[in-house]
Amino acid sequence: MSTLITPKSALVVSAHSADFVWRAGGAIALHVEQGYQVHIVCLSYGERGESAKLWRKGNMTEATVKQHRQQEAQAAAEILGASVEFFDIGDYPLRADKETLFRLADVYRRVQPHFVLTHSMHDPYNYDHPLASNLAQEARIIAQAEGYRPGEPVVAAPPVYCFEPHQPEQCNWKPDVLLDITRVWEKKYRAIQCMQGQEHLWEYYTRVALQRGVQAKRNIGITAARDISHAEGFQSIFPRVTGDLA
Amino acid sequence: MSTLITPKSALVVSAHSADFVWRAGGAIALHVEQGYQVHIVCLSYGERGESAKLWRKGNMTEATVKQHRQQEAQAAAEILGASVEFFDIGDYPLRADKETLFRLADVYRRVQPHFVLTHSMHDPYNYDHPLASNLAQEARIIAQAEGYRPGEPVVAAPPVYCFEPHQPEQCNWKPDVLLDITRVWEKKYRAIQCMQGQEHLWEYYTRVALQRGVQAKRNIGITAARDISHAEGFQSIFPRVTGDLA
Amino acid sequence: MSTLITPKSALVVSAHSADFVWRAGGAIALHVEQGYQVHIVCLSYGERGESAKLWRKGNMTEATVKQHRQQEAQAAAEILGASVEFFDIGDYPLRADKETLFRLADVYRRVQPHFVLTHSMHDPYNYDHPLASNLAQEARIIAQAEGYRPGEPVVAAPPVYCFEPHQPEQCNWKPDVLLDITRVWEKKYRAIQCMQGQEHLWEYYTRVALQRGVQAKRNIGITAARDISHAEGFQSIFPRVTGDLA
Amino acid sequence: MSTLITPKSALVVSAHSADFVWRAGGAIALHVEQGYQVHIVCLSYGERGESAKLWRKGNMTEATVKQHRQQEAQAAAEILGASVEFFDIGDYPLRADKETLFRLADVYRRVQPHFVLTHSMHDPYNYDHPLASNLAQEARIIAQAEGYRPGEPVVAAPPVYCFEPHQPEQCNWKPDVLLDITRVWEKKYRAIQCMQGQEHLWEYYTRVALQRGVQAKRNIGITAARDISHAEGFQSIFPRVTGDLA
Amino acid sequence: MSTLITPKSALVVSAHSADFVWRAGGAIALHVEQGYQVHIVCLSYGERGESAKLWRKGNMTEATVKQHRQQEAQAAAEILGASVEFFDIGDYPLRADKETLFRLADVYRRVQPHFVLTHSMHDPYNYDHPLASNLAQEARIIAQAEGYRPGEPVVAAPPVYCFEPHQPEQCNWKPDVLLDITRVWEKKYRAIQCMQGQEHLWEYYTRVALQRGVQAKRNIGITAARDISHAEGFQSIFPRVTGDLA
Amino acid sequence: MSTLITPKSALVVSAHSADFVWRAGGAIALHVEQGYQVHIVCLSYGERGESAKLWRKGNMTEATVKQHRQQEAQAAAEILGASVEFFDIGDYPLRADKETLFRLADVYRRVQPHFVLTHSMHDPYNYDHPLASNLAQEARIIAQAEGYRPGEPVVAAPPVYCFEPHQPEQCNWKPDVLLDITRVWEKKYRAIQCMQGQEHLWEYYTRVALQRGVQAKRNIGITAARDISHAEGFQSIFPRVTGDLA
Repeated sequence: MSTLITPKSALVVSAHSADFVWRAGGAIALHVEQGYQVHIVCLSYGERGESAKLWRKGNMTEATVKQHRQQEAQAAAEILGASVEFFDIGDYPLRADKETLFRLADVYRRVQPHFVLTHSMHDPYNYDHPLASNLAQEARIIAQAEGYRPGEPVVAAPPVYCFEPHQPEQCNWKPDVLLDITRVWEKKYRAIQCMQGQEHLWEYYTRVALQRGVQAKRNIGITAARDISHAEGFQSIFPRVTGDLA
Repeated sequence: MSTLITPKSALVVSAHSADFVWRAGGAIALHVEQGYQVHIVCLSYGERGESAKLWRKGNMTEATVKQHRQQEAQAAAEILGASVEFFDIGDYPLRADKETLFRLADVYRRVQPHFVLTHSMHDPYNYDHPLASNLAQEARIIAQAEGYRPGEPVVAAPPVYCFEPHQPEQCNWKPDVLLDITRVWEKKYRAIQCMQGQEHLWEYYTRVALQRGVQAKRNIGITAARDISHAEGFQSIFPRVTGDLA
Repeated sequence: MSTLITPKSALVVSAHSADFVWRAGGAIALHVEQGYQVHIVCLSYGERGESAKLWRKGNMTEATVKQHRQQEAQAAAEILGASVEFFDIGDYPLRADKETLFRLADVYRRVQPHFVLTHSMHDPYNYDHPLASNLAQEARIIAQAEGYRPGEPVVAAPPVYCFEPHQPEQCNWKPDVLLDITRVWEKKYRAIQCMQGQEHLWEYYTRVALQRGVQAKRNIGITAARDISHAEGFQSIFPRVTGDLA
Repeated sequence: MSTLITPKSALVVSAHSADFVWRAGGAIALHVEQGYQVHIVCLSYGERGESAKLWRKGNMTEATVKQHRQQEAQAAAEILGASVEFFDIGDYPLRADKETLFRLADVYRRVQPHFVLTHSMHDPYNYDHPLASNLAQEARIIAQAEGYRPGEPVVAAPPVYCFEPHQPEQCNWKPDVLLDITRVWEKKYRAIQCMQGQEHLWEYYTRVALQRGVQAKRNIGITAARDISHAEGFQSIFPRVTGDLA
Repeated sequence: MSTLITPKSALVVSAHSADFVWRAGGAIALHVEQGYQVHIVCLSYGERGESAKLWRKGNMTEATVKQHRQQEAQAAAEILGASVEFFDIGDYPLRADKETLFRLADVYRRVQPHFVLTHSMHDPYNYDHPLASNLAQEARIIAQAEGYRPGEPVVAAPPVYCFEPHQPEQCNWKPDVLLDITRVWEKKYRAIQCMQGQEHLWEYYTRVALQRGVQAKRNIGITAARDISHAEGFQSIFPRVTGDLA
Repeated sequence: MSTLITPKSALVVSAHSADFVWRAGGAIALHVEQGYQVHIVCLSYGERGESAKLWRKGNMTEATVKQHRQQEAQAAAEILGASVEFFDIGDYPLRADKETLFRLADVYRRVQPHFVLTHSMHDPYNYDHPLASNLAQEARIIAQAEGYRPGEPVVAAPPVYCFEPHQPEQCNWKPDVLLDITRVWEKKYRAIQCMQGQEHLWEYYTRVALQRGVQAKRNIGITAARDISHAEGFQSIFPRVTGDLA
């Protein structure tokens, strides 16, 4: 329902600078190929909590770690075809004040996303992730309000999807959407390989994609075999509005 | 993905002969207008539990009550554009043996539904409803098995949606789909009016449709105003497989 | 709202012949003192599953165990001031066919209870208990239906309360009502002492009553100290209809 | 159990200045008619998030919007018979520091409420609402503590009820109390009409009252027909302490 | 705490004849290596629902399919070091009468298991699995009752673990135990290869073992690196009794 | 798996200075007897919220109340054999800034705990308790991060157990571990008696220990009678990694 002039768009809110790759790289690449403009906000670089390998190298400062992480994230975003910006608000712990909230609300106003991807609501292994999810959701609500920066165009009610956490059951995360990413898998895997500091996760998330792919095939409603090998799972926050149940 | 020859189809499993009208009449009419063949199975006539007004008239037997109810249900199905069959297994309590299970599995095989509508999984006010839902789900599983009547074409994994129970929160029912039924509302209301024995529910379910309509408007992802006035809510049992998140 | 002629009444559905004593003895005695007629249905005698001490005595048959258990239950009911009947459908496993369902529905029609007490919906230690709860609830629904034994007076929608299981958290049982049984505690304890075969539970359920008593005091809405020492907890199945929130 | 001198009282904590009308107007009017003193705290005016229509008029500043909203809320409170005060802590986002927490605790100490009404614990559409609910609950706990302003009379443990959010199932809100507001409905509707900026909600909440009214009739425990047409639903946070289960 | 004479033992209750391999093959092999006697009950051969490849070969009858499946299961059990018996009660649908319940209770009495493995409590893709789990749990309760076959030695309260279903999140299955099966993985994979009719699952369950292995490493409480590569997840039904929390 | 040089250790994070006694005194004493070094952090003295009796004495200031409470807590810790430190961050409300978070993370680094005990995740009666639990969990995550104080030894993934809140069901707390504290009960009760200001809780928590003791006996997997009279319940946050399921 977008006009000819404005392309569809999507917003990804990532707590640390690599999360969007493991958890939503396929969704990003797939929608970019469909003509969406996808914009990624990395709230932090994950410089403390998700850069163990870099720190173990020695001779690192927080500034150099951040620089490494930024380069990796930018390279990955480029492969996926998305734009990326970095809020650099720090991690472990991530904390967001009102200013950050408004900054993100302003991104919503600018991007006018057709859908939003972010973290799960619960994660006992990572307190930054739910905080990022709550921030993304509250900023969306602010951006919808006529009384916030009155006169600016507000945003509608884009669906919000929580992408897959590292240990899904422990996060009470239950996917209600399985996205077929078969045709962009190679692109996602190239983006994954940008994450030089987290090689131990490459095969882990390859297997995640394969498992979700098998599950996607088990949930297809029509007998015609569809050729799905890789998928990503998402959990919706809101009900979807539709005109067709098939 | 249906071919030119085989139209899309849907299956509705209704515990009593009026449930499909209140709870899924909009979905039925809407999909019929889109070219689906919709088939309804009424497991019972609701002769004991949902025919209070008829019984209060006096001079009734179970046979005459069933006859009344069958006529009403057929008239409603006709308005909605669906075919209907009656298993007549009795209500209050509904009980299903293996034979009924296989009979319903055979309907699945024959209909090859692209989606299925049935009751919620929990209802403290009505034990027949969850039983019907479980029967519908188990029959679907049987119909998927190669070893059940080997050689027959099996069914795929059509999505199953639970339609709205009478007191939704008490049934732990939470809609994740809001179906816009605005353009078929008049048709649904005419079908509702066939239920002469349950006039007290006409306005109740009109209000349900209006409330779900308002909620649908609150969950649309794009700013362009869409003209929704009436909706039906559904809760999915399975994750949906898709290629587009907007 | 009862008339002068018909006293208020209550129905207790107990899987085994001692359950009503441990779990609802206070509620029974308290309401009897308030003028209610309380009727207890024991579905079984608990002859297999809850009579370990009797069996260990030796020289027992199922018939003699049942006899012992019936005497104990009758003595306890008498102390509490309630009438009791025994369905004797067997335990471990308890199984209820349609006939039992209708038999219990007929008790509902006869008793016309103002409230109902029965087991929790879940109990991994005791499969008979949830079955009894489901039977009690389905029978209530049957008894409400105009089409069941047409012409008989139906029952209204009496609230149903699940009484406390042996290991409450493991049963996902969460009390939303704390009933002050302080003034009938001595009577309940005398009824408990009728259960000669389960002495190990006497002190356990005394402590339950004391703990619930302390909790009741912590949940009183007004500053005036109320003298509660013993309580019983219950979990409601249905919302209550009221005209006062205090 | 109140004495002759001190009337019963209730406290309503409303995130925005209109919430108390849609969600608890019936409860307020009903208890006022029963002699309660009901006091309302509006944490904000909803000037940003719930005043879209005012902002669309143009020529508005936050100050003028607040003024409009205050007048509407005061008019509504007057119709309902309650006192109202405004904390004016801002909305979208609502944020409460310790000072606000203590300010609300002091209101508890002054009002000594017999029950408390506030928002649901979860609302993905509105982050201000759960925050208000948590604030109301934590302030109650502070007000109960002997060591907070030692020497002042503490409050007891008044029941807390969460009133109905806009999309109840999405908020995991499940009413366990249905309050019959039939005889004060006209008064509530007049209060609703004070909300000139939110006319689209008038009919929505009229239908909510009618649906809850039908549901209340379906949950009455005695056969004598009671004439309920309108109701409000509430979810309890704490177990209630009682001496009668009917 | 077993004596020198009686070895420790375990019981596995499998709905279909291959389930125990995919879901618990590692646990079986590991405990056999630790000296446990592990006994497997296959309630059915999965002849209808889990033998698609065999049926597609053509020239099959239910008898020949069962024979194939039995041979595969026996070969797998032998590799794992466990004994196996087949109840042959049919699948799709699995149904258990009292006789089957008692038959399984008698197995409990004979085996006196130190722990029990069975299916998850919920599975919308497979109704046989929860039924098997409930049967296993109810039989355990029967076997604990002094009044069932009085005079026989009863069983204690062995912990029950639900093994991993095919789509874990959809089954509301959440592992609270991760069993290190690294040193028996090769044995499990050889047992898996006995399942000639379900080759598509070999790699799926290899990946499951690798993912659970990674997760196990993430949940180890001590810094000393432990070399875990493969694991199986289990969900407990009951609290465990212990004397050490590390 | 600890070396000969470093003894095993445990960390207890207590919101107020008496919580660790009621809720984990047995676990502390038991592990101390097994050679663990147990360290307790009391975030506050509970000077406002849990010192009612002291305040009622009169002539108290916050400083004198704190002093009393500290002496009691130290005496109790000494009896149990644990070291204790006091963060003194205030209670009612407890609030933790980043500095407190890092201070606690540093305790983790120093103690290198093999397991952690803290409060439940939810408590509608006490907002300080969940806040303490979240602080304990987030500090653990910080302490695990290589990038926090790079170069320092990080902590592993010690299991975290939530100890029993005052009204367990209302806190959605469900124990999955029952710790046999029979042989240290006398020591725990002596520690309890140090809490002169909260005598009303002595018998309450004695009964808690007895009830959990009975439940522990009901959950033992082997027939040999074990002599358990007292226990403490705990709820795990994370899955445990093990090599033995019995």
